[in-house]
Amino acid sequence: MGLLERTLNRINPINQTLAVRVQARLDSLTKPRGSLGRLEELALRCALITSCERPRVDRKLLFICCADHGVCTEGVSAYPREVTAQMVYNYLRGGAAITVLARQLGIPIRVVDLGVDHDFAPHLSGLIQRKIGRGTANLARGPAMTQAEALRAVETGVALTEEAIGDGVQLLGVGEMGIGNSTAAAALLSALTGLPPEELTGLGAGIEETTRQKKVEVVQRALDCNRASSDDPFGALACLGGYEIAGITGICLAGAAYHVPVVIDGFIATAGAWAACALHPAAKDYLIFAHLSAERGHRRALAALGVQPLFDLGMRLGEGTGAALGMGLIESAVRLLNEMATFAEAGVTDKD
Amino acid sequence: MGLLERTLNRINPINQTLAVRVQARLDSLTKPRGSLGRLEELALRCALITSCERPRVDRKLLFICCADHGVCTEGVSAYPREVTAQMVYNYLRGGAAITVLARQLGIPIRVVDLGVDHDFAPHLSGLIQRKIGRGTANLARGPAMTQAEALRAVETGVALTEEAIGDGVQLLGVGEMGIGNSTAAAALLSALTGLPPEELTGLGAGIEETTRQKKVEVVQRALDCNRASSDDPFGALACLGGYEIAGITGICLAGAAYHVPVVIDGFIATAGAWAACALHPAAKDYLIFAHLSAERGHRRALAALGVQPLFDLGMRLGEGTGAALGMGLIESAVRLLNEMATFAEAGVTDKD
Repeated sequence: MGLLERTLNRINPINQTLAVRVQARLDSLTKPRGSLGRLEELALRCALITSCERPRVDRKLLFICCADHGVCTEGVSAYPREVTAQMVYNYLRGGAAITVLARQLGIPIRVVDLGVDHDFAPHLSGLIQRKIGRGTANLARGPAMTQAEALRAVETGVALTEEAIGDGVQLLGVGEMGIGNSTAAAALLSALTGLPPEELTGLGAGIEETTRQKKVEVVQRALDCNRASSDDPFGALACLGGYEIAGITGICLAGAAYHVPVVIDGFIATAGAWAACALHPAAKDYLIFAHLSAERGHRRALAALGVQPLFDLGMRLGEGTGAALGMGLIESAVRLLNEMATFAEAGVTDKD
Repeated sequence: MGLLERTLNRINPINQTLAVRVQARLDSLTKPRGSLGRLEELALRCALITSCERPRVDRKLLFICCADHGVCTEGVSAYPREVTAQMVYNYLRGGAAITVLARQLGIPIRVVDLGVDHDFAPHLSGLIQRKIGRGTANLARGPAMTQAEALRAVETGVALTEEAIGDGVQLLGVGEMGIGNSTAAAALLSALTGLPPEELTGLGAGIEETTRQKKVEVVQRALDCNRASSDDPFGALACLGGYEIAGITGICLAGAAYHVPVVIDGFIATAGAWAACALHPAAKDYLIFAHLSAERGHRRALAALGVQPLFDLGMRLGEGTGAALGMGLIESAVRLLNEMATFAEAGVTDKD
C-alpha cells in the first residue's frame, strides 16, 4: 500500500466527543456567550481537530509550494514564466509579502520546489528541492501530469507534512507560487465542482478582460481534451492541476490524517484543498479557509465546498499571504480559549 | 481657550501630498499591483495620516475607557451594574479577552476609570483613575452628564492621548467597558445620524428581544426628553453619551490633531468616534474602523459615517477586542510597505 493510500485510510471525520466540554468552557469565560463570534468557532474547531481541550498552535509552519506550468505557452498570464524562479529567490531573501508577514506573525516558512523550470544550486539554503519536472505539460493539449507524476507530487506533500508534524508542528498553512497556476486551478475546480469555466476563470495576477476571455477558452479546451470529471478526482488533479497544487493536496490530506489543522490560502490553494476533499470528504473537517480572494471564482469554489472564509480584505496575491493572516487569527482564538479567566476565577457576576 | 477648542483648532484634513509617491512605492513592490487589497489602502492611509513615506506603528497603545451608566435602572442590560468594576479588575489581572489579545499582539493597554461606580484603591497598579462621577445620570429622564462633566471627559481623553503621543506612541486603539453603554451609544448615534432608535438599538451583551423592545422605548424617551440633535453634537454627547464614550471622543480628536491613527473598536466606540467627527468632520481622516460588530445598528452607523470596517468576525464584545485585531492588520500593512523588496531590488521581471 502506497503513502497516499495509507494517508487516505488514516482520515476520519472530526471527533465531536469534546464539543460539549469545550463549549462549556467557552461559555464560562468572562464575556457574553458567543460574543467572540467566529473566534469561538475557531477555538472549538482546533480543539476538536486535535482532540484536545486546550489545543496549542504555538508551533506553526507555512509551506509555499512552487512550480511552473506548461499552459503558459497559451499566453494566459500577466507575468513571464521566469518570475516563478525569481520569486523563489525573493522568498529565500525575505523580500516577498509572505516573508514579511511570516516574520511579523512568527510563522516559519518552507519554500518547496516541486517543479520550477530553473536549476537551483544544490543545497540552496532555505529551499526544499523536490522537483518532479521542469513545469507541467500544457493542459490545454493533454494531461498536465502523468498519473505517476501527480502521485509523486501528492506524496511529496504528504511526506513533508509528516516530517513537520513529527518535528512538533501544531498548525499548518499552505500557499503557492507558479506563473500560470490560476488557469490550472480554474480548470481543476471546474472539473471537480461542475461549475462552468466562465465562473471560475479570473484575472490571475492581472491580465486584461480580453485575455481572460482567451483564458476561459483555454480552460474549456483543457476540460474537453482531458475529459476529466469529479468521478475521478485523482485523474482530474493529474490532467488539470500542477505539481504545487498536487503538493497542496498532499499537505491537506496529511494534516487531516494526523489531526493538525491546515489553513488554506486563496484561489489556487483552494483548488488543491478541493482535490483533497474530493479524494476524502472527511478531510474538509481539518481545513480552515482563511480569506475570500478577490480572484473571480473563489467565492463560488468555497460555496461549492460548503465552507466560509474568515475574512475578505480584497487580497489576491497568493504565496500564503491570506493563510498567514488566518494563522494569526487562529492563534488569537486558541489563546482566548486557553488564557481567559472564567466568571468564577475572575469573580465576575454572570448573567444567569 | 480650553483644551478641547485648542485640539479642534489643530485638526486639518489629511495631507495628500505624499499619495503619489507612496502609491508608486506600493506599485514597485514584488506583487501584482493592488493585490494586497485593503492592506495597501491601510499602508497608504498610515503614510498620509503621519505625513511619512515609511510610517512606523511599532509603538502601540490601546485605551479601555470604563464608566457606569444611570440608564441601568431602566432594566435594559443583560448584566448587573457591578460587572463594570469587576471587569476592570479582570483587565488589571490579565484574564479578559482584550488582555489576552493585547499580549499576543504586543499592544500595551491603559485601563481608564472615567466614571465607574466603585471605589478603587488609590494608586491601583495599571489603572488610570480619572473618575468624573460614579456613573452618569439616567439619560431617559434628563441629561446623562452636565456640559461641564462631558467637557471634562472629552478633555481627559485628549490629555491622556497627548501624554501617550508625547511618549512616542504611533498607533492608538480605543475600546470600552460600561454596563448600559449600548443604550447610551444607540441614543447618541440616533441623535447624530437621525436614524430611528429601532435601527440602532441591539441586544447589547445579550438581552432578549422583549427587553430590546423596552430598550428601544428607553432610547426614544431619551431623545424626546433631551431634545438632542445633530445641530449640537457636543450637547448630544453630554445628554446621551457617557463618560467613557466622551473620553473616546477626546482620544479620537487628539489622534487627529497630532496625526496619529486611531483604531476604533465596535458599536460603542463608534458612537464616541461619530461624536468626534460631528465636532470636526476632518477627524474622520485619522480614524480606522476595525470591524463590523454583530450589534444591530453598527452597520448602519458606519454607513452613515461613510466608512468601511476591515473585517467581520461576528464579534460583539467591546473592550477593544476588534480594535486590537485591527491594529495587528495595520502593523501588517505598514510592514509590507516598509519591508518588501521592489521588483528592481529583487531582480523580478515586472509586468510592463
